[in-house]
Amino acid sequence: MENKGILIVVSGFSGAGKGTIMRALLDKYEETYALSVSATTRDPRPGEVEGREYFFRTVEEFEKMIAKEDLIEYAKYVDNYYGTPRTYVEEQLERGRDVILEIEIQGALKVKEKFPETLLLFVTPPSAAELKRRLEGRGTETPEVIASRMKRAREEAEYMDRYDYLIINDDLNECVEEMHQIIQGEHRRSYRNNAFMEHMKEDLKGE
Amino acid sequence: MENKGILIVVSGFSGAGKGTIMRALLDKYEETYALSVSATTRDPRPGEVEGREYFFRTVEEFEKMIAKEDLIEYAKYVDNYYGTPRTYVEEQLERGRDVILEIEIQGALKVKEKFPETLLLFVTPPSAAELKRRLEGRGTETPEVIASRMKRAREEAEYMDRYDYLIINDDLNECVEEMHQIIQGEHRRSYRNNAFMEHMKEDLKGE
Repeated sequence: MENKGILIVVSGFSGAGKGTIMRALLDKYEETYALSVSATTRDPRPGEVEGREYFFRTVEEFEKMIAKEDLIEYAKYVDNYYGTPRTYVEEQLERGRDVILEIEIQGALKVKEKFPETLLLFVTPPSAAELKRRLEGRGTETPEVIASRMKRAREEAEYMDRYDYLIINDDLNECVEEMHQIIQGEHRRSYRNNAFMEHMKEDLKGE
Repeated sequence: MENKGILIVVSGFSGAGKGTIMRALLDKYEETYALSVSATTRDPRPGEVEGREYFFRTVEEFEKMIAKEDLIEYAKYVDNYYGTPRTYVEEQLERGRDVILEIEIQGALKVKEKFPETLLLFVTPPSAAELKRRLEGRGTETPEVIASRMKRAREEAEYMDRYDYLIINDDLNECVEEMHQIIQGEHRRSYRNNAFMEHMKEDLKGE
């Protein structure tokens, strides 16, 4: 089969556990996956490391990246730019690693439009009640923040059907395994294996 | 997630090992899968059992099934009818089992047209040379039969890209596991989970 990696976008409700799943997936299968690191113009928060959480850039630097088409997608949220640098993604895909972008829905849809073979995964808890429970359970959020996250979830839910697969996060380990199997299964899609099919047709003529 | 089964069509080159894979898959996951048994008007061969290899029917009985639309698909090969009885398939899908039809390409495409959510899997050896080796290795086929199988494979290869997934049969156990994971992954497709998504949207409004 082809050895090129798949571009994967993971989105999901805030509180669905995306971050935890991603870390566990990348830990368990570090040779298989590469996580794309976004660039941003917002200030680093305490503990954040350049190149790990984000590439921190000035507005001028970021706008130069836009102009040079160095970003696969970008968006502005509340005065700050966020975007996905192209070079790293392309290098990793060429090396045969599946590259994961953890981005918002609008960004996800833009990437899919530009690269139709992108795999879109949406992470959701098993129910709305469970989502609320998890947001409250963190114990660090004010009721206003929780309410605004729930409002956002209502808006985001309208886009779930634009994703290829739903990942129901009930049990972390099962969820990580499921995501891995879905992605690996996608490598067997016929449209991702045109070279194999062409080869087979040619070889059959010779036999 | 939804509990309804998925209709799966498995096709592939003669000599690709479809039959062996199917038996191993059904043995290993007997609660998950049900194999659809075809009806035919051809005579039973020694050792074939009614309801196991085929449902053996007279031409009159078979044509009555066609008239009553009791068949999901049917075709005539060399004077004999072959077809897939509808009732068993529908019952098993309702019970939540994934139903596998092992049928020819033309039948597969007819089923997909009628039921667009059908999953089409194509089993192939890793190469044309390997296909020939396996056909010769059986030791039971004349050179003419092998040549005609290879000719057929050349024709069938033109339709590989109409299938959703390619299953490369290199190692039997890996292949069975891969097929299982692909099918189970398909259960997470968003378009197969409309009820879940509608529920989630409704519930989020209530929270």
